[in-house]
Amino acid sequence: MISWNNLDTLASYQELEKVERVNIIEAMAGENGAERVRNYSVPMAEGFAYNYAAKSVDAKVLAALGNLAEEAQLAEKFEAVYNGEVVNTGEKRLVLHHMTRGQLGNAVTADGVDKRAFYTEQQAKIADFANKVHAGEITNAAGEKFTTVVQIGIGGSDLGPRAIYLALENWAKKNNTLKLEAKFISNVDPDDAAAVLNSIDVAHSLFIIVSKSGTTLETLTNESFVKDALKNAGLDASKHMTAVTSETSPLAQSDDYLAAFFMDDYIGGRYSSTSAVGGAVLSLAFGPEVFAQILDGAAAEDKLATKKNMMENPAMLDAMIGVYERNVLGYPSTAVLPYSQALSRFPAHLQQLDMESNGKSVNRFGEPVSYPTGPSIFGEPGTNGQHSFYQLLHQGTDIVPLQFVGFKNSQIGTDVVIQGSTSQQKLCANVAAQIVAFACGKADENRNKNFEGGRPSSIIIGEDVNPRSLGALLAHFENKVMFQGFVWNVNSFDQEGVQLGKLLAKRVLAHETDGALAVFSELLNI
Amino acid sequence: MISWNNLDTLASYQELEKVERVNIIEAMAGENGAERVRNYSVPMAEGFAYNYAAKSVDAKVLAALGNLAEEAQLAEKFEAVYNGEVVNTGEKRLVLHHMTRGQLGNAVTADGVDKRAFYTEQQAKIADFANKVHAGEITNAAGEKFTTVVQIGIGGSDLGPRAIYLALENWAKKNNTLKLEAKFISNVDPDDAAAVLNSIDVAHSLFIIVSKSGTTLETLTNESFVKDALKNAGLDASKHMTAVTSETSPLAQSDDYLAAFFMDDYIGGRYSSTSAVGGAVLSLAFGPEVFAQILDGAAAEDKLATKKNMMENPAMLDAMIGVYERNVLGYPSTAVLPYSQALSRFPAHLQQLDMESNGKSVNRFGEPVSYPTGPSIFGEPGTNGQHSFYQLLHQGTDIVPLQFVGFKNSQIGTDVVIQGSTSQQKLCANVAAQIVAFACGKADENRNKNFEGGRPSSIIIGEDVNPRSLGALLAHFENKVMFQGFVWNVNSFDQEGVQLGKLLAKRVLAHETDGALAVFSELLNI
Repeated sequence: MISWNNLDTLASYQELEKVERVNIIEAMAGENGAERVRNYSVPMAEGFAYNYAAKSVDAKVLAALGNLAEEAQLAEKFEAVYNGEVVNTGEKRLVLHHMTRGQLGNAVTADGVDKRAFYTEQQAKIADFANKVHAGEITNAAGEKFTTVVQIGIGGSDLGPRAIYLALENWAKKNNTLKLEAKFISNVDPDDAAAVLNSIDVAHSLFIIVSKSGTTLETLTNESFVKDALKNAGLDASKHMTAVTSETSPLAQSDDYLAAFFMDDYIGGRYSSTSAVGGAVLSLAFGPEVFAQILDGAAAEDKLATKKNMMENPAMLDAMIGVYERNVLGYPSTAVLPYSQALSRFPAHLQQLDMESNGKSVNRFGEPVSYPTGPSIFGEPGTNGQHSFYQLLHQGTDIVPLQFVGFKNSQIGTDVVIQGSTSQQKLCANVAAQIVAFACGKADENRNKNFEGGRPSSIIIGEDVNPRSLGALLAHFENKVMFQGFVWNVNSFDQEGVQLGKLLAKRVLAHETDGALAVFSELLNI
Repeated sequence: MISWNNLDTLASYQELEKVERVNIIEAMAGENGAERVRNYSVPMAEGFAYNYAAKSVDAKVLAALGNLAEEAQLAEKFEAVYNGEVVNTGEKRLVLHHMTRGQLGNAVTADGVDKRAFYTEQQAKIADFANKVHAGEITNAAGEKFTTVVQIGIGGSDLGPRAIYLALENWAKKNNTLKLEAKFISNVDPDDAAAVLNSIDVAHSLFIIVSKSGTTLETLTNESFVKDALKNAGLDASKHMTAVTSETSPLAQSDDYLAAFFMDDYIGGRYSSTSAVGGAVLSLAFGPEVFAQILDGAAAEDKLATKKNMMENPAMLDAMIGVYERNVLGYPSTAVLPYSQALSRFPAHLQQLDMESNGKSVNRFGEPVSYPTGPSIFGEPGTNGQHSFYQLLHQGTDIVPLQFVGFKNSQIGTDVVIQGSTSQQKLCANVAAQIVAFACGKADENRNKNFEGGRPSSIIIGEDVNPRSLGALLAHFENKVMFQGFVWNVNSFDQEGVQLGKLLAKRVLAHETDGALAVFSELLNI
């Protein structure tokens, strides 16, 4: 029997707080440190390993975290998710994004259909459509092949698919599987749509409108923007547009689209990269086989996340260490630092995934919690970040826990040897060096050149960025965030905090404002 | 006489802590709130205004902050900067970035030359070179015009110039002043250079190597990468390369370059956008006249920053409110949220500017300080962020102060009317709505839909993003960060925190490691 309890009511949390703190500087020194790096590692799918040697944990802390994971019933709660319980209690919905890439437990029926069948059916529909586009069976009105696909969506309909596209664009070029170039329009700022439209050949472009409800302000506005452009170019918009939406949305049955692909209420935007939301644009850009590989990688990682033993479950372990840093050590933010240019926008996706899921002050029963929940997340790729904000990370007055991601091999494979090493080796040398610099520091009589150390980090090490590994990485973080939400007893699957702004913006546009809002509207010339 | 004292030794800081806290919810309600929005505003250059109505300040807090600004001698310290005192004490250097765009005080002579004359001379050299490239007087070996300029630099040689280029690319297209398309290579990850090289026509590309010391690992490596590519294409690399470096660097007198433009030790990387570092790439991309407009905007804003009265000095006021939030209210991070797609990478530049300048734990005499200094900075453009991390900003357990930037007009000017409003109006309506939603909140019996409010924000409101306004915005933030550094008594102009990582990375590449570092090197296949 599952019970949903606040973190501070759990006996094992009280125990955890009493466990002696780990001195990372000592722990990581000398041969002991070397042993630690060898041992503090748990295998992930697709050749990844999660290494937590430089985190402020030891056997005692890990044991206490394991007890907490058990008392908080993380494995059982994940089971409830994938077996189709109503875990998104606020919105009274199931949480089924895992099912887009596999079936971890029982068959789940909702709305009278088997949901796994529903998701695979949409994938098949998308694959068929994409194959026809690539084969020139679906073309523009002049019978010419499409060359570009443009995703129109915002938030979860943008960040995840965009991060994945950017991560695999060069891989696809190298492997001759870049079928269509992809572009993305998200912001309601008219400069966003205008700039994308100026950069493409609209006559050979296929647009995907992505909105679950079919009512997202930004997306509908940008759809109109694009329709105008198509019309001005003398084109029939309906021959250039497809929709990804829910079956009940106004977009679902419209004649305005070449095709409509369906999502449902059981997958939140930020968890929708492996649903039709990511499926349509990525299958069109790279081919359905490549999208299927992303799903395979994610499914393999999901499977590991079902393990009951925290020490064999990388997402659960990563989650619990994060909780320890947030609630016991009191660190308010976390930086995500992939040492891979391909992952340039992956931190932006994780920022949404994490902050929108767990940035909550009430538990799943709507009662205020009295402990910190989700941290602020930010990050940029290394080595770029080293020449930017790492100064604060090394010597600032606050400690920011770090999550590195590194790969043994580059993606494109073109490299140069300078001073006896390749660029890829230099990249890897830098991430290794940073972990040790943050952990161990370095004493200097000149205090300005002194590094205190004791700054915790983990690293996920993989072979290279490819569709399968990227899928695994994506699933790892989705599951990590889900587990943390369980520990904090929040509903990680709604986002009521975005509503008030929408409501007030509507009032401004209707000129139904007074007080401060009326004056701001005036100052902004609305 | 200037004295450099720690914040917690100042009498006015003790006084500030005693001032009653402001209840933003009450302050921003009703007609009082409207009055506040009208009055809590200070004009900036280029049509901007800094509006701090939704910050947790009132007349009493502002008076106390004004006293603190006075006791901390902010105006006098800025005077010392622009009159050429050795304010970068750690490195024993002057701090002269303001002089690239004007002369605010005395003539400053260093290294035997008038520095203003030195900077304008470099600008003239760059302008002459750029004009010749645009006119086809400087061409590739085949006598063909260059079409693309590629900046090879990292950190301050990348983020600022890149953010500015992206901010003005569409403006330049619209105004027929995009002379060359610009690209940027920064990361030592070989995939960065390879992807950029795959995307351009190297035969018609001009490369700018930017490194003050001429020894930056990433930049020299990427230079070799590019030279290889040019050689493989049968081209003479020296006909495609220029350098921006210091006069004493190994790059300065090399025959490898068509031209070399000079910077000096008195301008830190993150403050170098208005020096030759930004000057070369932006003059080549947009024309020297456009770069001159950026300088004019920055100079106009600098002039406001010299005002002694905090209430007339937007950068100083912004800085002091930030100090209040950081040190008295205890907020650890700040989000920068420009409502303009053109400013998509401006937050990444500000992240470096702020975190690298003030992420320090020792004062300018190398003594540890016992109060928080620079906050963590992150941000994305609105409305995108609204559909991403704003959930946490509205309903998370931590309060994150916000810095909005909004513009009355779009940049490209193409727009659509949907439901009675343009996209630009929708964009502006959203930022207005957000400020009020964060400040005032909204009570709801369903605690999950409850917004507590009391979350402080400011907004800089301008006309549109153009070269002059962008220059002003850039200078505003540079000066804000400088003033905060003065208050915290840190040296905002060095970055010793980046050294240890570099040192350890070298050891890894030389295989001179043991302990934890040796094992990480092994795991990463170095």
